Amino acid sequence: MGVRLELSDDLVTLTRAVCDVPSVSGDEGALADAVAAALGGVGHLEVLRDGDAVVARTQLGRATRVVVAGHLDTVPITGNLPTRLLDQDGEAVLWGRGTVDMKAGVAVLLSLAARLDAPSSDVTWVFYDHEEVAADLSGLQRLVEHHPDWLAGDFAVLGEPTAGGLEGGCNGTLRALVRLHGVAAHSARPWTGLNAVHLAGEVLRRLEAYEPATVSVDGLDFRESLHAVLISGGTATNVIPDECVVTVNYRFAPSRSVADASQHVREVFAGHDVEVVDAAGGARPGLDHPAARRFADAVLAVTGGAPSAKLGWTDVARFAELGIPAVNFGPGDPLLAHTADERCPVRQIEQVHAALRAWLTA
Amino acid sequence: MGVRLELSDDLVTLTRAVCDVPSVSGDEGALADAVAAALGGVGHLEVLRDGDAVVARTQLGRATRVVVAGHLDTVPITGNLPTRLLDQDGEAVLWGRGTVDMKAGVAVLLSLAARLDAPSSDVTWVFYDHEEVAADLSGLQRLVEHHPDWLAGDFAVLGEPTAGGLEGGCNGTLRALVRLHGVAAHSARPWTGLNAVHLAGEVLRRLEAYEPATVSVDGLDFRESLHAVLISGGTATNVIPDECVVTVNYRFAPSRSVADASQHVREVFAGHDVEVVDAAGGARPGLDHPAARRFADAVLAVTGGAPSAKLGWTDVARFAELGIPAVNFGPGDPLLAHTADERCPVRQIEQVHAALRAWLTA
Repeated sequence: MGVRLELSDDLVTLTRAVCDVPSVSGDEGALADAVAAALGGVGHLEVLRDGDAVVARTQLGRATRVVVAGHLDTVPITGNLPTRLLDQDGEAVLWGRGTVDMKAGVAVLLSLAARLDAPSSDVTWVFYDHEEVAADLSGLQRLVEHHPDWLAGDFAVLGEPTAGGLEGGCNGTLRALVRLHGVAAHSARPWTGLNAVHLAGEVLRRLEAYEPATVSVDGLDFRESLHAVLISGGTATNVIPDECVVTVNYRFAPSRSVADASQHVREVFAGHDVEVVDAAGGARPGLDHPAARRFADAVLAVTGGAPSAKLGWTDVARFAELGIPAVNFGPGDPLLAHTADERCPVRQIEQVHAALRAWLTA
Repeated sequence: MGVRLELSDDLVTLTRAVCDVPSVSGDEGALADAVAAALGGVGHLEVLRDGDAVVARTQLGRATRVVVAGHLDTVPITGNLPTRLLDQDGEAVLWGRGTVDMKAGVAVLLSLAARLDAPSSDVTWVFYDHEEVAADLSGLQRLVEHHPDWLAGDFAVLGEPTAGGLEGGCNGTLRALVRLHGVAAHSARPWTGLNAVHLAGEVLRRLEAYEPATVSVDGLDFRESLHAVLISGGTATNVIPDECVVTVNYRFAPSRSVADASQHVREVFAGHDVEVVDAAGGARPGLDHPAARRFADAVLAVTGGAPSAKLGWTDVARFAELGIPAVNFGPGDPLLAHTADERCPVRQIEQVHAALRAWLTA
């Protein structure tokens, strides 16, 4: 007997219901079943399914089609479920795993999917699995490979948390290993060896001295960064280490290709052994595209503010690869994503709902 | 049915027999049994035992008593047993685990213990377990605690490998953790955190700039050193590390106390979180002591050369704590200790045997 979602519930009730069905990556089945069942009862939608991804679309013959997407999975629960509705300085706040990343967004999408039977563009609503884990498990990438036609569209919105602001594109991300090679020796006679950990001092010095660029792309400022995320060296407390490995993460503007970014990292660490082990290109904001322009005008009329650049990598990059301009727009402060204290103001959920509704009915 | 050692065998045969009984730390029983049985058959010795430590002593009523000691255990075997007798550029060399550290020395001691029925000083021969592992397991320390009288003497010689040279005293050794504290953040927005691995750059810089002292103690030069032996930081490739730990090893001259050495390390890393986790003081060479002087004169008359400082920590420091001057003197190049290619020239074994014999019969 599965969980039942009532899509006509108010946003607070629906968000809590979605959050309170645990769906840590790999365990999205129960929530995907509930989503598919609820959407299956909506007359104006055709519902499709692949694994734990659910796609629901209108077929109204509109001139344009937009894709509105969100992932169903969360990072692991850390004592932060079930959800709680809190009063924080007079403001109603939903607390618990997924309230930010990104089940409040999912609830907004579900509510709109059920209500909007005559949107101004045809809409494809996409709910997918395995976003919070390794790229090769991605439910969205699986849809790209199995059913590229399900994702066809002129413009895409990803409901990732942006604190209710409009964030265009995303930075790319690259991971590289910088390996220092020394010569082992007994630590009572270190001068007979070469200390690889001491050699890493030069790598850390370059990281400290590094001045990251802020790159303007299509009118948005993408702030780059280059940081060590892991370091390890040494095997025993009486041995001079013969190897030290510094793992660096480079976040780069979408105007750079992965090849350019790799070359840049090699140049920063010139003279050292550098291996790029993982990279994903970013996505240009595409706000000069007419469909994106229309989206920005419609939602900013509701929310106020101005578009900014998305700094974390998101699945807008997959839409960019498909040639579909895409933006991030959702409730929840991205700085609270993945934290034990994940929480989202109810007002943001309602505002995102109102803005998307205004756009889709304009 | 245990292994049988023939103490009247030539040194090569006896060394090979001792090496070919595996006795990795914790597994010294078979060798200790064989040593106790062989020494038990020597009329002029009283044999005592505590666990896998065996003590054999003369009771001749001499004016002085010397302690001659060696450990029975080795580091793990890495395909380097049984021993082989090789010809290396015309020189006979014994190859295999323990030939350096320190079963050739043990064989020399066993051979002398059996033969010298009228030494010029009373002699206490000590063979002990658990030298190559954590200090709290040390068989010699156990004897200090259970039977301090068994170790009484005016002077001690430790048969640790010195390549047949006379090495006085030993450096102390200290291990400290230098912990850098940062603030975790998502690596897409590193400026919202503080990177603890980058902070470690300053620690490595101080290690690179560190100019180790060479300290003359009782006429011998003790070369000091301060090196990172381990480094670790970071938890995931998309998180700015909030902690980095550098483990440093300080080898310090025996003129410094552990307290002085700890203070020095704290000063080198002033401003950082430093925790001393392990320390053992060194031992002054004590070559100004009359008994040590007599030893040096006797053995250098056979070997030539001059005394030098022992840089690795050895159990001479335990004798120093008991107030007994002690030196290191044994066959085998210490740089080959613990290596898979451990090997010792037969000539060194014979020369150490001749030198100790000359000393004990002078």
